[in-house]
Amino acid sequence: MQTEISIKRVTPRIPGGFPEYLPKEQILFNRMFATIRSVYERFGFLPLETPAVEFTGVLLAKGGGDTDKQVYRLYAKSDSADKGDAEEPAADSNGATEKKTAFIDTGRSLHFDLTVPLARYVAQRFNDLVFPFRRYQMQKVWRGEGSQKGRFREFYQCDIDVIGTTSPLVDAEIPSIINTVFEELGLPAYTIGVNNRKILNGVFATFGASKQVSKDALTMLDKIDKIGKDSVTAGLCDLGFTAEQTAQLMNIIALRGEPGEVFVQLQANGVDNELFSEGVGQLKLVVEAMQAFGVPKGKYCLDLSIARGLDYYTGTVYETTLNDYPAVGSVCSGGRYDNLCEYYIDKNLPGVGISIGLSRLFYQLKDIGFFQGDVTPISRLMIAIADPSARQYAMTMAAQFRQHGVNTEVYWEDGKLGKQVKYAQRLGIPYVAVLGGNEMTNGTVALKVMSTGSQTQSTFQEALQIVSADLN
Amino acid sequence: MQTEISIKRVTPRIPGGFPEYLPKEQILFNRMFATIRSVYERFGFLPLETPAVEFTGVLLAKGGGDTDKQVYRLYAKSDSADKGDAEEPAADSNGATEKKTAFIDTGRSLHFDLTVPLARYVAQRFNDLVFPFRRYQMQKVWRGEGSQKGRFREFYQCDIDVIGTTSPLVDAEIPSIINTVFEELGLPAYTIGVNNRKILNGVFATFGASKQVSKDALTMLDKIDKIGKDSVTAGLCDLGFTAEQTAQLMNIIALRGEPGEVFVQLQANGVDNELFSEGVGQLKLVVEAMQAFGVPKGKYCLDLSIARGLDYYTGTVYETTLNDYPAVGSVCSGGRYDNLCEYYIDKNLPGVGISIGLSRLFYQLKDIGFFQGDVTPISRLMIAIADPSARQYAMTMAAQFRQHGVNTEVYWEDGKLGKQVKYAQRLGIPYVAVLGGNEMTNGTVALKVMSTGSQTQSTFQEALQIVSADLN
Repeated sequence: MQTEISIKRVTPRIPGGFPEYLPKEQILFNRMFATIRSVYERFGFLPLETPAVEFTGVLLAKGGGDTDKQVYRLYAKSDSADKGDAEEPAADSNGATEKKTAFIDTGRSLHFDLTVPLARYVAQRFNDLVFPFRRYQMQKVWRGEGSQKGRFREFYQCDIDVIGTTSPLVDAEIPSIINTVFEELGLPAYTIGVNNRKILNGVFATFGASKQVSKDALTMLDKIDKIGKDSVTAGLCDLGFTAEQTAQLMNIIALRGEPGEVFVQLQANGVDNELFSEGVGQLKLVVEAMQAFGVPKGKYCLDLSIARGLDYYTGTVYETTLNDYPAVGSVCSGGRYDNLCEYYIDKNLPGVGISIGLSRLFYQLKDIGFFQGDVTPISRLMIAIADPSARQYAMTMAAQFRQHGVNTEVYWEDGKLGKQVKYAQRLGIPYVAVLGGNEMTNGTVALKVMSTGSQTQSTFQEALQIVSADLN
Repeated sequence: MQTEISIKRVTPRIPGGFPEYLPKEQILFNRMFATIRSVYERFGFLPLETPAVEFTGVLLAKGGGDTDKQVYRLYAKSDSADKGDAEEPAADSNGATEKKTAFIDTGRSLHFDLTVPLARYVAQRFNDLVFPFRRYQMQKVWRGEGSQKGRFREFYQCDIDVIGTTSPLVDAEIPSIINTVFEELGLPAYTIGVNNRKILNGVFATFGASKQVSKDALTMLDKIDKIGKDSVTAGLCDLGFTAEQTAQLMNIIALRGEPGEVFVQLQANGVDNELFSEGVGQLKLVVEAMQAFGVPKGKYCLDLSIARGLDYYTGTVYETTLNDYPAVGSVCSGGRYDNLCEYYIDKNLPGVGISIGLSRLFYQLKDIGFFQGDVTPISRLMIAIADPSARQYAMTMAAQFRQHGVNTEVYWEDGKLGKQVKYAQRLGIPYVAVLGGNEMTNGTVALKVMSTGSQTQSTFQEALQIVSADLN
């Protein structure tokens, strides 16, 4: 067939920050995705998926911060069938004399996280949900970030939240979920760090700090890994803490070791404050629970320096790091908050949640060489046709293998056997069934084991047994 | 905790055409999604996921049609970190004196199907792919449609394509894939209709029709279910066909019955044309293959009236309908095309593919009452805590059940046993393990079977066996 010369071609490329993989990588990515989902379900979380698109006004209800700058707005042609449904007129109403713009603001935008859509969903469906509402949500989100290495504008978040609960036992269960996910993903050595904001806020309170100063102090402490201890010390003094208070704070957040000892030292600090005591009590419960849930000792630590950036956390906070790759930062974070839906309904909905930034984690794991060795391929078996007369036999055989759950493809192209086997090799397919006139006559398959090169005449049942031997 | 009065609340709502489900529906949707994916993989298709966002110029490379009007453009605040990378300046360059617009066109848009991104991907990654390239892709797409009932602006498409093959055996395998998907989804009675455009195009050619008239005639025939036989007859005459030719065409597309008989009658029509014969030959092969693959007789039909709307199909075409719900239209369609990537690279890449519009199918299945009976819940077991002293025991038990692959949640809230059991009931969780002081002392669980209400003291092993009895 001849290509028409009149076609004006466009260079095939994608914008930066929007990741895309080759099939072998996609298989790895999907398996990680499936593992996370499977663990979330094993802990009884219900699936939820919200539209990628929300009303801009709903997304930005909270306001403040850089969110507004990061949101991608959806525009449509002014003669589109979708007339948009902005909550407020998108354009100036006095623009009648101006040239009509070709694109109109539809009043909708791409979500930038899964927490705001969750809050909107829970507020909207409040009467249809069973509380405590345990939900997981694994979707892409979009942010108009700069285009540095490893920064994504489109990426997956894998979130769980339990909504409508104040029970610290729910906080206590979370590290067990993180541990199970990371264990089943087979990640390199990691540490689940836990803390409770009430402890630091309690200390701030005894220092007479206002609510705002407490917030600023947490933000300052959260930067310690980036800007260093000295800058944080200086920053705390700038916020009005005395040198003595700052020293006491720095001592507290530096406490490490066996949880039991840390608690002893923490309480020896002489802080007498209700919030502080509540925080310590809840943190103790979380630590006890990790033991009851069987989280191994080396996999978690009590880290009083964990503050987290987001200001809506009010209690337990989590941060998970890879021991040998501190530069990667936290790969699973979260915490407890007091009121999920306050910008949408007048109901108190406290909860606790965590998020795994899968696209970023996947990128970083690739970067540190985590994915070694062969990728498990999709097809378990390729059927090669050695003689055109065996085509119908190949169809029947393929159908039989598939009926027994074996992922099977047939090489349908005309081509020498060598070329066919080469295709299987390139895709890493472990078995090839060669079918020709002989096999058709005898009702057998010539089964080739790609790893050894050995080939044996087998009945279908024999071949099935070999091919599905190490399948679940 | 008191709600702050100063918060300005926004009504929680979502725009029309962007579907969202309650958890019970989401579970059903996800199971359908997983079934389709599992079948696609069983037939050896590789996973692919492309970004939701592409360069607008790449998406619209083909041009023409209503696509341009349906595409959602991404705009960002002009002070966003994402400066955009439009291929051409988005605004007039002589607009220096005008007020600077607050939002800029990033030069990117949401994809409106998965075929254009596939074409871009294959063109861009040509040297890294193994051909024939068998890929599946199951993602959301976005279209600025009007907001009629059942019309979605955000919806899932579940596509497979085989790229870089002219073998009619690949066409012949497709109906077996469709049949396996629909069988495993447990859909109500359906018919996989097959045709080959070469047959009708061959007939048009013997009538002396130009390429354009042939295209228009196919488009006309595609409308027969919507506008009726008479209007199509009139339309064909308007295109320049004689009354006799039109009558012959209408006779051909009305042929029904056993494939063997249809072929006899078709060839008795006296059409002598190479394209026609090629089409008939390929269609015969498809029908024979369906038998070899084990597609049951009642599940497919040869339907010479199938034309399909898209003009890029050149050979085999597929359309699947629900026998008892003709108004639903085709729920799985596709066909063979000559050149996937012609707008991106100068390589001939013929292929064949199909698409299942899952969001639409799901909506329609709900509409016809397909989803009856109980939804299989996520959690298999809920642990109820009858006595606070049993909390640690509950944690240990939960961990054990989960280690054995049982989806397990614990009711952590304080609350009477009745309230706890009620929660399990509302979520449809089939088993409840009640744990109190007794159970803790004896290392047992009081296992309640929700369907019967019976409760028995069991060892962990006994309980595990009961709870996981009918799991795979």
